[in-house]
Amino acid sequence: MDPLDDLAGRLPRGTVTTDAEILRDRAIDSWALALLRRVRGDDLPVPAAVVFPARTEEVAAVLAWACEARVAVIPRGGGSGVCGGATADVGSIVLDLSRMNHVVSVDPVSRVVQAEAGVRGDQLEDALATHGLTVGHYPQSIVSSTVGGWIAASSAGQASTGFGAIEDVLLGCTAVLPPGAILRCRPVPRSAAGPDLRRLLVGSEGTLAVVTEATLACRARPPGWDWLVFGFPSFAALAGGLRDAVRAETGAAVIRGYDEADAQLNFAALGHAGGCVGMLGFPAGPGEPAVGNALAARQEQARDVLRRAGSSGPLDASYGEHWWQHRHDAVDTYARIMGPDRAFGPGVIVDTFEVAGLWSDVPGLHAGIRDALAAHAQAVLCHLSHLYSSGSSLYFTFLISGMDDQDAAARYLAAWDDAVRSCAAAGGTLTHHHGVGRLKAAYLTGELGEAGVDVLKKIKMALDPQQIMNPGVLLP
Amino acid sequence: MDPLDDLAGRLPRGTVTTDAEILRDRAIDSWALALLRRVRGDDLPVPAAVVFPARTEEVAAVLAWACEARVAVIPRGGGSGVCGGATADVGSIVLDLSRMNHVVSVDPVSRVVQAEAGVRGDQLEDALATHGLTVGHYPQSIVSSTVGGWIAASSAGQASTGFGAIEDVLLGCTAVLPPGAILRCRPVPRSAAGPDLRRLLVGSEGTLAVVTEATLACRARPPGWDWLVFGFPSFAALAGGLRDAVRAETGAAVIRGYDEADAQLNFAALGHAGGCVGMLGFPAGPGEPAVGNALAARQEQARDVLRRAGSSGPLDASYGEHWWQHRHDAVDTYARIMGPDRAFGPGVIVDTFEVAGLWSDVPGLHAGIRDALAAHAQAVLCHLSHLYSSGSSLYFTFLISGMDDQDAAARYLAAWDDAVRSCAAAGGTLTHHHGVGRLKAAYLTGELGEAGVDVLKKIKMALDPQQIMNPGVLLP
Repeated sequence: MDPLDDLAGRLPRGTVTTDAEILRDRAIDSWALALLRRVRGDDLPVPAAVVFPARTEEVAAVLAWACEARVAVIPRGGGSGVCGGATADVGSIVLDLSRMNHVVSVDPVSRVVQAEAGVRGDQLEDALATHGLTVGHYPQSIVSSTVGGWIAASSAGQASTGFGAIEDVLLGCTAVLPPGAILRCRPVPRSAAGPDLRRLLVGSEGTLAVVTEATLACRARPPGWDWLVFGFPSFAALAGGLRDAVRAETGAAVIRGYDEADAQLNFAALGHAGGCVGMLGFPAGPGEPAVGNALAARQEQARDVLRRAGSSGPLDASYGEHWWQHRHDAVDTYARIMGPDRAFGPGVIVDTFEVAGLWSDVPGLHAGIRDALAAHAQAVLCHLSHLYSSGSSLYFTFLISGMDDQDAAARYLAAWDDAVRSCAAAGGTLTHHHGVGRLKAAYLTGELGEAGVDVLKKIKMALDPQQIMNPGVLLP
Repeated sequence: MDPLDDLAGRLPRGTVTTDAEILRDRAIDSWALALLRRVRGDDLPVPAAVVFPARTEEVAAVLAWACEARVAVIPRGGGSGVCGGATADVGSIVLDLSRMNHVVSVDPVSRVVQAEAGVRGDQLEDALATHGLTVGHYPQSIVSSTVGGWIAASSAGQASTGFGAIEDVLLGCTAVLPPGAILRCRPVPRSAAGPDLRRLLVGSEGTLAVVTEATLACRARPPGWDWLVFGFPSFAALAGGLRDAVRAETGAAVIRGYDEADAQLNFAALGHAGGCVGMLGFPAGPGEPAVGNALAARQEQARDVLRRAGSSGPLDASYGEHWWQHRHDAVDTYARIMGPDRAFGPGVIVDTFEVAGLWSDVPGLHAGIRDALAAHAQAVLCHLSHLYSSGSSLYFTFLISGMDDQDAAARYLAAWDDAVRSCAAAGGTLTHHHGVGRLKAAYLTGELGEAGVDVLKKIKMALDPQQIMNPGVLLP
């Protein structure tokens, strides 16, 4: 029997499709290089089929079949990944979880939500809004990324400084491992019962298992946000000021710091007069516990910290409101630049590199990666967006033009090569929350060392001996 | 050649000892059953040797030898574990890390400390005090437990509600895997580069690798603590009040809630008049950022939350100060009861069971486990000590007398059996921060399911194919 007929026979009608348009659409994610290749008309591989399971047990049936048939399985959430983590090869099947998009239950006493892996961020938040709750996980991609994708790609939202990253809200989950075993991690706030299996899935990028359901911690939904914005004369002063601010634990859930170039681009509409910009967003409003006197006192404390840290003075709160209102625009902008429209012309590529390091290393990471990218790119912007007591993420946006010749891919990869090397030289990690995918797999040994990659490869071989799970991704 | 002579020849002089007293001392940890057996004069197994490495490379040499000689290796920190995680079998060697007790470096800009695995908690804190810093990881066992033990056993300190558990401060580490590979995870605040290898070590209880060094996040050292204490008429009211308090994010780093029996025992010296007790400890004092108006406003907010949650009213702050001053007494009390002195007589055993669950499950866990233990024990106390927005730990202390006959071990294990089953029935995890060890290994399938245990066993076989690493612990 044809293996695909065999697969289709094991699943409800309509679960497996070989529709050419669907195959083409699910062949790539939002990796800039793939989008560039597609718009250039390159002959990109497409999968043999796209499978749309509706239940965990159907995912198990798919993996059982794939192990027997030795077919590669590419799990897919919203396709918003930017490192090629969901890229189909010829002969593979894409496991599209978009039909598993139900919010299963909300426990208002424990403030937890159980959701299927294919639930999109905006769907999740809409369901929670009726309970006055939020997960507080707000990636820029929230309208196109999914619960399962957040776990697989080790996501962090824009309020992660206060509300935590995905591992901080992940309490329980269900996942399917080859050849179809169903792993159920019961939702608990913490457990010391062995290495945390939930955390083994975070960042595994579909190479070990398919997450089908998760229970996430929620919090009171902030009715609004209140912004403190300060200017800084230099990146060093900005970093130092925000470092002190995060350590003051004033309750600011969003902390962002823009270098001069990034501030100029983002706040030109507000007539920004130059310099770096730091902003603190406080959950605020009548339903929020941390309000009233405590909010006022916390904000005064934050002002005091920023003043003493060498700020050039307060800026208008509209900077924060402007960012909040436009925080998802970059997704559309990216689609317009990189998609079929090619708003900036066919030869322009825009990409992002989000690293992280200790505060001691942050100045070196900023200068080193900026300079490395500037040797290839026409524009390089950077902001700090996920801050910790010990360090910060640095989010670089870069634009390279003239990418309309046959050497474009090589030149794109050369820019990445220099950027990743300068990151490692400055002591940073090559990804804070976008993951590794195909883009950075070759650099994983530099990141984790031979011993670290060896551990991951041994785990991969132990759990997926037929190597059906998302081959080519993550591991070098 | 005798394998031990071979081992000794690979290491500096004095690294390997077969001194009978040292072998006997390092044969067990602080597991109540082992202490009972020792004091009864039972013939306990002792290891073939105790090895005291001074460097990571010496640990690697030991694991290389152990893989060749097929000798079991029992990594040992401070021996403070209470589940038998560091128990020697005949023929095994104990890898005692107490010579690796150096604080390697402190980075005051990033606020991180790099310490060898054998550094005890009090040593670590003493070294940080000169920098005005603290890790904020304060397990009750702080004067006898070590950095490496905290990671291996998935430790959580008494201020974990505000300062996080060990995984929240673990930024980087060095570990040795069989047969001697050295894994170095660079310290970064967060990384999305694959499944987090640092987290694979947390809770691994020496079954996968030996942690030899770690970089931990620090914070400003609180000059003191300021306490809010409230009485509650019932356990349900207590749990509800503290649940609301933790969600208010008022900056209380320590939150504790005592049921009636536990409050009576702990606060008898203060003339406690009955009822449950909830306390919130705020880092306070001139060097602490969260002070002044913000502290006063936060405390007022906390008072308001507790009043509205059904508290029977404020109690004196001396409850908090009393707890803080006596917070390590239980370690001494335990030693006096369970050690050679047998302060309560030879037939008394005291043990603790620390579970965790969602808030919805907390009342059922409290009643279920209390009743299960009460069928075996003369006293059962419970407090909440690690609180989350989604749930809480429940820490049961129980005392069984009449354990001086030959059936004592069986009766002890029968009490555990009932307690663990009632925990599972009520939806909890069987350990919040003590780990699994030998005591709970048989219950791991109930905890993680067949699929979960299968994943851990496959990882174990992949990383430790000769099964030299702490056999008999964690895995059923």
